Amino acid sequence: MATLQDIAVSAAINILSTVTFLVAFAILRLQPINDRVYFPKWYLKGIRGSPISYGSLSRFVNLDFRTYIRFLNWMPAALRMPEPELIDHAGLDSAVYIRIYLLGLKIFIPITILTLVVLVPVNWTGKTLELEQFKNLTFSNIDKLSISNVPTGSKRFWAHLLMSYVCSFWTCYVLYKEYKIIATMRLEFLASQNRHPDQFTVLVRNVPPDPDEPVSEHIEHFFCVNHPDHYLTHQVVYNAVKLAKLVAKKKSFQNWLVYYQNKHERNPSKKPTTKTGFWGLWGSKVDAIDYYTTEIGKLSEEEDAERERVISDSEAIVPAAFVSFKTRWGAAVCAQTQQSSNPTIWLTEWAPEPRDVFWDNLAIPYVELTIRRLLMAVALFFLTFFYMIPIAFVQSLANIEGIEKVLPFLKPLIEKDVVKSFIQGFLPGIALKIFLVLLPTVLMTMSKIEGFISLSSLEKRSASKYHLFILVNVFLGSLIAGTALQQLKQFIEAPTGDFPKTIGMSIPMKATFFITYIMVDGWSGIAVEILRLVPLVMFHIKNTFLVKTDQDREQAMDPGCLDFATSEPRIQFYFLLGLVYSVVTPVLLPFIVAFFTFSFVVFRHQIINVYDQKYESGAAFWPDVHLRILIGLIIAQILHMGLLSATGADKSTTPWLIAQPILTIWFHKFCKGRFESAFVKFPLQEAMVKDTLERATEPNLNLEAYLQDAYIHPVFKGGELDIPVAMDEEENNPLVPTKRNSHLGSKHGSEVSPEADI
Amino acid sequence: MATLQDIAVSAAINILSTVTFLVAFAILRLQPINDRVYFPKWYLKGIRGSPISYGSLSRFVNLDFRTYIRFLNWMPAALRMPEPELIDHAGLDSAVYIRIYLLGLKIFIPITILTLVVLVPVNWTGKTLELEQFKNLTFSNIDKLSISNVPTGSKRFWAHLLMSYVCSFWTCYVLYKEYKIIATMRLEFLASQNRHPDQFTVLVRNVPPDPDEPVSEHIEHFFCVNHPDHYLTHQVVYNAVKLAKLVAKKKSFQNWLVYYQNKHERNPSKKPTTKTGFWGLWGSKVDAIDYYTTEIGKLSEEEDAERERVISDSEAIVPAAFVSFKTRWGAAVCAQTQQSSNPTIWLTEWAPEPRDVFWDNLAIPYVELTIRRLLMAVALFFLTFFYMIPIAFVQSLANIEGIEKVLPFLKPLIEKDVVKSFIQGFLPGIALKIFLVLLPTVLMTMSKIEGFISLSSLEKRSASKYHLFILVNVFLGSLIAGTALQQLKQFIEAPTGDFPKTIGMSIPMKATFFITYIMVDGWSGIAVEILRLVPLVMFHIKNTFLVKTDQDREQAMDPGCLDFATSEPRIQFYFLLGLVYSVVTPVLLPFIVAFFTFSFVVFRHQIINVYDQKYESGAAFWPDVHLRILIGLIIAQILHMGLLSATGADKSTTPWLIAQPILTIWFHKFCKGRFESAFVKFPLQEAMVKDTLERATEPNLNLEAYLQDAYIHPVFKGGELDIPVAMDEEENNPLVPTKRNSHLGSKHGSEVSPEADI
Repeated sequence: MATLQDIAVSAAINILSTVTFLVAFAILRLQPINDRVYFPKWYLKGIRGSPISYGSLSRFVNLDFRTYIRFLNWMPAALRMPEPELIDHAGLDSAVYIRIYLLGLKIFIPITILTLVVLVPVNWTGKTLELEQFKNLTFSNIDKLSISNVPTGSKRFWAHLLMSYVCSFWTCYVLYKEYKIIATMRLEFLASQNRHPDQFTVLVRNVPPDPDEPVSEHIEHFFCVNHPDHYLTHQVVYNAVKLAKLVAKKKSFQNWLVYYQNKHERNPSKKPTTKTGFWGLWGSKVDAIDYYTTEIGKLSEEEDAERERVISDSEAIVPAAFVSFKTRWGAAVCAQTQQSSNPTIWLTEWAPEPRDVFWDNLAIPYVELTIRRLLMAVALFFLTFFYMIPIAFVQSLANIEGIEKVLPFLKPLIEKDVVKSFIQGFLPGIALKIFLVLLPTVLMTMSKIEGFISLSSLEKRSASKYHLFILVNVFLGSLIAGTALQQLKQFIEAPTGDFPKTIGMSIPMKATFFITYIMVDGWSGIAVEILRLVPLVMFHIKNTFLVKTDQDREQAMDPGCLDFATSEPRIQFYFLLGLVYSVVTPVLLPFIVAFFTFSFVVFRHQIINVYDQKYESGAAFWPDVHLRILIGLIIAQILHMGLLSATGADKSTTPWLIAQPILTIWFHKFCKGRFESAFVKFPLQEAMVKDTLERATEPNLNLEAYLQDAYIHPVFKGGELDIPVAMDEEENNPLVPTKRNSHLGSKHGSEVSPEADI
Repeated sequence: MATLQDIAVSAAINILSTVTFLVAFAILRLQPINDRVYFPKWYLKGIRGSPISYGSLSRFVNLDFRTYIRFLNWMPAALRMPEPELIDHAGLDSAVYIRIYLLGLKIFIPITILTLVVLVPVNWTGKTLELEQFKNLTFSNIDKLSISNVPTGSKRFWAHLLMSYVCSFWTCYVLYKEYKIIATMRLEFLASQNRHPDQFTVLVRNVPPDPDEPVSEHIEHFFCVNHPDHYLTHQVVYNAVKLAKLVAKKKSFQNWLVYYQNKHERNPSKKPTTKTGFWGLWGSKVDAIDYYTTEIGKLSEEEDAERERVISDSEAIVPAAFVSFKTRWGAAVCAQTQQSSNPTIWLTEWAPEPRDVFWDNLAIPYVELTIRRLLMAVALFFLTFFYMIPIAFVQSLANIEGIEKVLPFLKPLIEKDVVKSFIQGFLPGIALKIFLVLLPTVLMTMSKIEGFISLSSLEKRSASKYHLFILVNVFLGSLIAGTALQQLKQFIEAPTGDFPKTIGMSIPMKATFFITYIMVDGWSGIAVEILRLVPLVMFHIKNTFLVKTDQDREQAMDPGCLDFATSEPRIQFYFLLGLVYSVVTPVLLPFIVAFFTFSFVVFRHQIINVYDQKYESGAAFWPDVHLRILIGLIIAQILHMGLLSATGADKSTTPWLIAQPILTIWFHKFCKGRFESAFVKFPLQEAMVKDTLERATEPNLNLEAYLQDAYIHPVFKGGELDIPVAMDEEENNPLVPTKRNSHLGSKHGSEVSPEADI
């Protein structure tokens, strides 16, 4: 078991690496050449056209040394933008995502202060671990501050019981407040939004085949009959998988063409050549520019032919469509009601934003969908529960004795104090981390197989899978696997079952492990995020070989986006740790508060300057976030119950804890009824208000023309993923005038623009 | 433990009592004087006006002895009415309720045959229980036919595993077929229904208070704005609790008045007197007829004043209303959509039938509702889990040793063979039964507190509570409490937890207990039901003292109705027993098949001749029935898993059973998605079809006048619970012509009318 010294070493390493990353970031971001890596958002917004020059000395390197002195002042700058402007600038999704960190601070700062003041003295004076009988057990100084130091059956456990209630109550109170705020923010956001195609449009799936009519006419007739006063138009969905492949291939060939053209320009004497075989590695040697030009020509023709075929072939139309209505009211009605007596056909739901649609999944029939979900549930089960085995194996290696046994020749090296501390304080965290990196892609693929039809729902679904995985493997896996190795004997002799007790008892022992984990994952990990190493390298490669025009440079930027599916469950893990250890080992809490604070600043900086969201769901993910924090809270409560009953607390304390999870579940139901529908449905009253307003302000609006091309598969737009028309319109014509518009065309003069902090 | 002989004694007793009840019923029902007790349905339908006379000998006693000979021929008569006519005659609720028994037969007849043929030989030849080492354990011959007789670790368990899968698959298949049939029946029933007020009406609750407008105007304005093309009218709900009390009091006084008037008529010489105090037991003596006449006069005045007050006082209007629309489409839209951005106000849902409304619960605000639900959930928990203690106590007494210990002087009596068999075969079942009789009223009260707004939902909710109770107390309680007494020692020494194993192991041992239970509750209990003892006695008391006119006699009839809240969970218990014992002790299954057959005939007779349903929900309860059978199936599967792993079956068998519950849960989800919305929502397509049809056939319909008084609290209709107008209309003008109409006015001539079997 790690001692206080190990922790200190680990902390030193992590703080050092964090600071190193931050310094590197501070230096790199000031170089004009990196401007498009660290401030892509401002370029995409059109507010910045080219890097700011620091004096006239260089276009690439910033030689103005005064700017390096204040290397941390991006932090206050990140905090300065007020929230309404942030929503306007980066969208509601990002602004609300940031609030998760804020929520962590709101929950844990008071809990940290309270538990440190109340429980640490109670535990410290318990003095159990100094007794003679425990001399043969290993324990660290941290354990003396934890609940393990309180003698069995002591009246002191009442303090822990009381604190458990206080923490639960405070968490629920903050959650309720936050849910209310976010629901209001969402409703205000939706109300202030300009006209969007998705406000008028409903996605209808599982259109039944009709022997007499093609799909398109069948849909039109159905809605003309059943929504006669409201139906406006519809767009069928084409099966464009092959076309999308052609477009992607052409795009890649175009990149190669540009690459060889650039090469030729720089060295006009030599004609670049390539081989026609696989990846240009073998085959006959040809002139590269000619080759790619003819290939692109061929592909263009093929693409046009395929496009023709898809549009004219009725087989290529899938039984799904985007149906648009004359009013928002009509769309809201159609999205919320059942159309046919058979509930598996004519399924209607709100259309996602055009950008948000996941086109491949629109045509899955009902029975296939349920079977896919079953298979994926089983797959998730196996993935979650049998992934544990390698983790347990690696962690069992990551202690001194394990390594000495497997690799005995390393013994002299390992026995050195510094190396020992490093292995014990650092390796277990790293081992866990590597496993986790491989996972999100697998989970996202599984969600795609499950057949969700929008990117936002795919992300939400992957997040919940990832959350389950972290719960079982990182949390429970660490608790049990670690304990199993250290205390295997006690484990077998104790009565089986009694899960909460066993887990509960191993919690205090794993505090030091989780502290190192927080430092590796939560501190250094976040600092790496802000450095953006991969996009930095990629940008410079692209910039060197592929960029000719400013537009190319625009495309070479990879702003990235908030990866909700991966990062939200990771935040949830910190919530869980905080809630579990709040009563058990309060000294862990300051580490968590540090994580939330640091992440909040870093991600606020990132969403202001870097990330460009792919879609805007209006914070539709909040109910999930809320639910998962509550799941963490309930787990914490059950473990406290198990721990208190297992450590032989005063018999009369444990029953008092049973009410906690029941009340928490009730609280969840209450919140669900109170707020959730704000994230799922669109109230008719709001729709009617917006319709009426629009009729009054724009009586001659041609809605049909506006909606005509809103939901067209991106490959039909010449293969380029344009920002849709509606978005441009909002940019140029926002309902709420903001300061942001005054930046347009000017490069300076904003209190929050990224150059203000230099 | 009961031996085969005990079972035989119990069977003899129960068959004897069942036959006795049936003979008594056969005799009583043929007496003209009881005609209104055993055939009230036909009187209420207006098809029968007075008892059929058997010759001219007597109006009260049937002296035509030929009619007694065929005393069982009500049974074929009950089976003869075809289902469409049954739906027409008794409503869809009743017809579908009967199908639950039919479903039991469909599931269990094939399973019984299969398991008896396959598993009984496998078990019988196992011969474990004849080994020397088991000589000290008590076992009966029945156990030799059960899984207990198979040796530990035997390959024979593969047969049980396979049969478990076959049974689960067959059950799911039959359930799926049945769900499909019932969904179709419901949709056809709704489509063929004539115009009903509830088709056009939506119940809106939690109307927010408005400072400037009274509730009624506020509602009108809201719906005029948000449903401008569809809103027609609305009816506010009055708080009429006090008025209802006055009406009830007046009604009771009127009964007394009639009683004394009758008394006076029969004995004109003596004026009846009463005392003015509590229940007429003390106080000054007055002339009864005068006293009640003046009291009724006073009450009428009071009632009129109160009625005036309620209608004119704006305080008496609760924030809920029945809002009617011009079309079914408009109502369907409003019922399925969210109105306001705050999801706890302007809550809309389909209005229940006027008869189905539970008026007291219409005005409960959201927060209060959630708190009520929490409190009732906690109360249900305590009721369910602490009710077990007395049952366990009584059952521990109900064995020979227990009684001898507590009451040693009874020893000589008890030791006699007949008495011993009686105590062991009969008492445990009776003890359980008595506890259960007290319960349904408590559960219904709890459901009322929870705030459901229709009688049908109250019944559904009570049924689910009762189901939980039966599961925990009757099923688990019997298994554990019984085992605890017999095998307490083994119980304590085994590892704790491992719940399914422990329960699983006690299953085969309790087979004989459940067989006696089935005979007492399922055979004799059902025979008592058909005898209708309580209504028989009550009718004759009322007929003697209160009846003056034919209308009075009509009111004295108490046809009763299917008590879904109590009887459905009891059926579920038989499903559970059948599914659990299918693999374990197949000899129990014929008893269950007998129960389903007998109940099917009895209840079909009852719904044809007796019951008069209070409301018609269109089989809305079926999803609950389906779900609970699946819960039973999953419990059975888990117990099989526990049993097989505990009896040391071949290690490789148990893992194969894990897939069963997972597949069953998936099957539940599949069915839910496929069928449930047919029971919850009303599809727009259907609404549109009916609207269009109606516009074409009745272009001049004055819908507003039709709906004007549909939803008025019954006390405003002069204190009498009239059958609403809409129902009368359907009676006189059915969409589907049926044979039933030919009965109108004629007393004979139907193949299914109750007299046909005489």
